[in-house]
Amino acid sequence: MSEIRKDPASSTWIILAAERGKRPWDFKEEKPKESKKKSRGCPFCPSGEEMKTPKPEHAIWPGVIDKETGLWQTRVLSNKFPALTPDSELTQGQVGELYHMLSGVGGHEVIVDSPNHNDTLATMSEKQIGILLRTYRERYRFWWRDPRMVYLLIYRNSGKAAGASLVHPHSQLISTPLIPPRVFDELEEGRNFYEHNGECVFCKIREVESEAEPNRKIYENKTIFAFCPYASRFPFEVWILSKHHYSTLEGIPRKKMRLLAEAISQVFKRMEKVLGDFPYNMVLHVAPLRTPGLLYYHWHFEILPRLAMPAGFEWGAGIYINSISPEDAAKSLREAL
Amino acid sequence: MSEIRKDPASSTWIILAAERGKRPWDFKEEKPKESKKKSRGCPFCPSGEEMKTPKPEHAIWPGVIDKETGLWQTRVLSNKFPALTPDSELTQGQVGELYHMLSGVGGHEVIVDSPNHNDTLATMSEKQIGILLRTYRERYRFWWRDPRMVYLLIYRNSGKAAGASLVHPHSQLISTPLIPPRVFDELEEGRNFYEHNGECVFCKIREVESEAEPNRKIYENKTIFAFCPYASRFPFEVWILSKHHYSTLEGIPRKKMRLLAEAISQVFKRMEKVLGDFPYNMVLHVAPLRTPGLLYYHWHFEILPRLAMPAGFEWGAGIYINSISPEDAAKSLREAL
Repeated sequence: MSEIRKDPASSTWIILAAERGKRPWDFKEEKPKESKKKSRGCPFCPSGEEMKTPKPEHAIWPGVIDKETGLWQTRVLSNKFPALTPDSELTQGQVGELYHMLSGVGGHEVIVDSPNHNDTLATMSEKQIGILLRTYRERYRFWWRDPRMVYLLIYRNSGKAAGASLVHPHSQLISTPLIPPRVFDELEEGRNFYEHNGECVFCKIREVESEAEPNRKIYENKTIFAFCPYASRFPFEVWILSKHHYSTLEGIPRKKMRLLAEAISQVFKRMEKVLGDFPYNMVLHVAPLRTPGLLYYHWHFEILPRLAMPAGFEWGAGIYINSISPEDAAKSLREAL
Repeated sequence: MSEIRKDPASSTWIILAAERGKRPWDFKEEKPKESKKKSRGCPFCPSGEEMKTPKPEHAIWPGVIDKETGLWQTRVLSNKFPALTPDSELTQGQVGELYHMLSGVGGHEVIVDSPNHNDTLATMSEKQIGILLRTYRERYRFWWRDPRMVYLLIYRNSGKAAGASLVHPHSQLISTPLIPPRVFDELEEGRNFYEHNGECVFCKIREVESEAEPNRKIYENKTIFAFCPYASRFPFEVWILSKHHYSTLEGIPRKKMRLLAEAISQVFKRMEKVLGDFPYNMVLHVAPLRTPGLLYYHWHFEILPRLAMPAGFEWGAGIYINSISPEDAAKSLREAL
């Protein structure tokens, strides 16, 4: 029998229905061969940068440069097809007597995660992941200073079925003049929980998940904890967070950042072992800009594999049907290596 | 420049970014040939029913039977892989000290929309769509009587990219022991709007959309109004609602139901003309069960074409990026026939 579960961090509801995993499927599965090898013409590869991307001096941020070779290791570029653009005034307005809008002011950037066309977070060195995290932090600091912006969402799309348009490993960020509703829900639940219990709900989740039976833990080191959340919306959903309370990546000391890179690497090695070259979205949730040291919010990565298809029920209800329990998913990831 | 728009009915935010429509795409588009012709082995086709579906007397509801031919025109079956099941007690519980769950009690049914394997809402006769609407209403009345249930969501998935697992035209319904969050948001916004303005927000939207310039109207008849909403989350999103205030389909007189069937037919003929055999989800939002005559809620169909891919930003932010303006979408649908 299925279960209806509630996520205490966002009040999201899911239906856990393992039987659904056995549905028949009428459509021929045509796995697109994501021609990974071919890097010719890739606008993110080092060889192509002269032609297709802004020259280093035109990049938004030159990225981390390797001291020995002089080559870039990450780069930050303007998204050529931006959802929001920074070069105008933030205005808001009433449209007729009913509608409300803001001008599309914000940032939309692409971070090239690695010079290597075929890298994934499972094949990248921990050092490279650390460099990527430093790049995230650099952009966070940059957007922190723009008074029009209140939030910075960093995310990754990987694989066609997850909405990625290019193969070369890359992250994106969008800074927005409003707090995204999904983050707003977490902030609200976090504040409620803090008011009632005097502690951060994410800290509490981590504490509970350390001891929970059945176990949903995947990996931990001295600083970082990775697990499948109790109310996973997606099959094999994984959250990664710090054991100590930080509301953004900003406060984390350099040594702990190394342990975060290690954890990300370990989690993705496990996920690729179990799921192959799987499509996924990954989001980094942090506190809003210029709200340092929030006691009731806790940064975390959400890894959302796109193995199932949210459809009419999910869009119409806002409830997610998941056909693989986080307990089973965690067990196979825990034992993968 | 893009715009950030707010939907007054649910407080959903979208980013309208027309430039995004021109993005390059690295992955080869392999349009799966949805082998429509082949109906052999289809569990929903009349010929296969003896083998693969419950016999008529075992169907949940025998469906509408044609008086002349004695053949069924719609059928209602149990979903063989249900997300929720009705045969147990509704219990709720605390799991450890942090988590909250309900037993997976509810209904999950499949409605076979037509005996014809290749029918779509564009090719079905208005009469057949009317029969389908009667079937929806029948199931609504049935679940209304189950005191454990508070909501009934009726929806359609059409096409592989919209999560449909079978080609034969079918609808589904899930009845739930909680109000779906997406509907809850609409109820809350609706109530707020009513308290401040003394009228239903959907009635107001319809009034505004009748006169709006630029125009987002697609089709209307004496009773029904179809348009692309101001803050469309998806390209070519269409809402269909009644001009008079009804919170559910229940109150609509039979003559008006005929005009609803006509409007659905007209809308889908236009959508197929412009978009071809497009994948979509369609949801019917009505008031919760046993809340007759709500003044601040208004039934409506939402048609959500799945031409774009919600990805990391959408999942992480809860904000939707749409690259086709509802004004342009409505214009092409309005002028399609």
